[in-house]
Amino acid sequence: MTTATRAYASTAAGSTPAPWQYEPRQPRPDDVTIEILYCGVCHTDIHFVDNDWGMTQYPVVPGHEIIGRVTAVGADVSNFKTGDTVGVGCLVDACRECPCCEKGLEQYCAQGVWTYNGVDRHDGKVTYGGYAEGILVSERFVARLPDGLEPASAAPLLCAGITTYSPLRHVGVKPGDTVGVVGMGGLGHMGIKFAKAMGAEVTLFTRSQSKVDEGKRNGADHVVVSSDEQQMQQAAGSLNYILDTAPVEHDLNPYLTCLNVDGVYLLVGQLTPLNPPIDAIPLVLGRRSILGSAIGGMPETQEMLDFCAEHGIACDVEMINIQDIGTAYERMKKSDVRYRFVIDMASIKAE
Amino acid sequence: MTTATRAYASTAAGSTPAPWQYEPRQPRPDDVTIEILYCGVCHTDIHFVDNDWGMTQYPVVPGHEIIGRVTAVGADVSNFKTGDTVGVGCLVDACRECPCCEKGLEQYCAQGVWTYNGVDRHDGKVTYGGYAEGILVSERFVARLPDGLEPASAAPLLCAGITTYSPLRHVGVKPGDTVGVVGMGGLGHMGIKFAKAMGAEVTLFTRSQSKVDEGKRNGADHVVVSSDEQQMQQAAGSLNYILDTAPVEHDLNPYLTCLNVDGVYLLVGQLTPLNPPIDAIPLVLGRRSILGSAIGGMPETQEMLDFCAEHGIACDVEMINIQDIGTAYERMKKSDVRYRFVIDMASIKAE
Repeated sequence: MTTATRAYASTAAGSTPAPWQYEPRQPRPDDVTIEILYCGVCHTDIHFVDNDWGMTQYPVVPGHEIIGRVTAVGADVSNFKTGDTVGVGCLVDACRECPCCEKGLEQYCAQGVWTYNGVDRHDGKVTYGGYAEGILVSERFVARLPDGLEPASAAPLLCAGITTYSPLRHVGVKPGDTVGVVGMGGLGHMGIKFAKAMGAEVTLFTRSQSKVDEGKRNGADHVVVSSDEQQMQQAAGSLNYILDTAPVEHDLNPYLTCLNVDGVYLLVGQLTPLNPPIDAIPLVLGRRSILGSAIGGMPETQEMLDFCAEHGIACDVEMINIQDIGTAYERMKKSDVRYRFVIDMASIKAE
Repeated sequence: MTTATRAYASTAAGSTPAPWQYEPRQPRPDDVTIEILYCGVCHTDIHFVDNDWGMTQYPVVPGHEIIGRVTAVGADVSNFKTGDTVGVGCLVDACRECPCCEKGLEQYCAQGVWTYNGVDRHDGKVTYGGYAEGILVSERFVARLPDGLEPASAAPLLCAGITTYSPLRHVGVKPGDTVGVVGMGGLGHMGIKFAKAMGAEVTLFTRSQSKVDEGKRNGADHVVVSSDEQQMQQAAGSLNYILDTAPVEHDLNPYLTCLNVDGVYLLVGQLTPLNPPIDAIPLVLGRRSILGSAIGGMPETQEMLDFCAEHGIACDVEMINIQDIGTAYERMKKSDVRYRFVIDMASIKAE
């Protein structure tokens, strides 16, 4: 017998998540049962609530930046025990057999199961995310929160953190490298922190003169106002890498010319298509490249959390109650958050 | 005292190269004086004759796929002597001091001097290319033709060859890799040969069913007719690398989905912009990348020639006299050449 899980769900395109409940599955032998403490609010949540990508199955329970406490473990679980503080990100399952899974790149498995709006590989049911009091997740897709990380500000690391850490790590950012970061939202401010912690000299690109001081406070060595042509020309050919975190359509071409020879443009936004179109000449005449990257695999997610603990890195968050989610969405649409809302999930139990 | 150099020049946009002559510079101490034996005909030649890129300075003497014989060397020349058979490609000079030059990546030097329509760094004069009886080139920008390479069919290696060899080498194509090649012209047929010689399994993409047998004769293990959606779907996710040699605007998106996770799309055409625009989702959701590449540096050009000698690789050529250059251009515009015209420069001396 199970009891219903209290959650907040959106029931139709654009409807603000509201109280709802669902029957959780029977725990499986490899399942970790998690009481959710905190859940970060990602722009992707809004995309699914609004059905921007035409693939939302309602009701949808968003949330894939989850920190919680283990309340039970299945018989086959060996890495976690009751009382552990753990994290769950965008993925809760994958085929576990393909070359990607074998390499710990579960995020690229063709059978990957998203934390919400995914389809469970065993029972074919839709998955529900972190705007809830609890969740069941197979051990492989659970990460351990290392000592020294504050749980609330660690929640966004499970998506915003790993999404920016993974490409910087994949290309091997190291001391002496120059890294540009486009955008300073939830992802961008993490990108600055990671690149700095990896030893790079960091340049923030922002459209707004008003963000120059803020960018430097966040650790950027230089801030380039991208609407200022003279500043952009001065930055030409100066960067080994650019991490582009802007979530909306924008012109990549002015940034591509800021890469030096062999420079790599790291793209994490699912922009489709890349409009205005890209000019191939800066790529060809400088052996530059554009490299896509999505979140990270489970081994790298754990590595990222450990890296954050070691370097004292956390996300800058603003705490809210689940009842304030509509207001939070409205503010996010205006970029009015520094830099991530995190839901204190105690608020769902207080109802 | 110098005597005039006989050449073929185009004197206005679209005018077929015709007899012309120019006063060569006084040889410098690092100059190799070369009697040109053969010169390949590259599509770039037509672009410059037609002023397609708006940067042609007339008269223009095209030609950057040069094989010749050394007739004299300056006092500082140590690697070549009279009688040597040598090659000259797209570059005849660079700053020699920047990080690119230090790494032998002279093609990415911001001060690089193109073999024709370039500007000499010493005297500020326009450079003239290989549709001529001779050329003076600084030793650093001269390659040695290794024993075993037939001079006429080696000429196109200096552009078509190095342009395809360099990106395949840069990404480290090795036995067991799967490599796609888009297009089977002067570049594409070399791409097939190089990828095969590096040990890869090669898939040719062609728009035309009629080229299937020809592709296999050229060494492709598989041929996919890109207009056949079913064949394209079967190729989805199957390739480590795709070398795109198509010189005209085309849609990259169907090919991007043929890359597997971590696959790299090698782009050598100076397409501006990439229309229709690229969909970022296959990049992001598979850590795929698009990497530009331009010709190759001088050390790699020599390495490529040596690789060709070792593996018995040559360009498939059709010999012409310089007087037939107009007809050759017309046929190239209709893709009616298998696969590169090479001018027998003895024809210029017979006039």
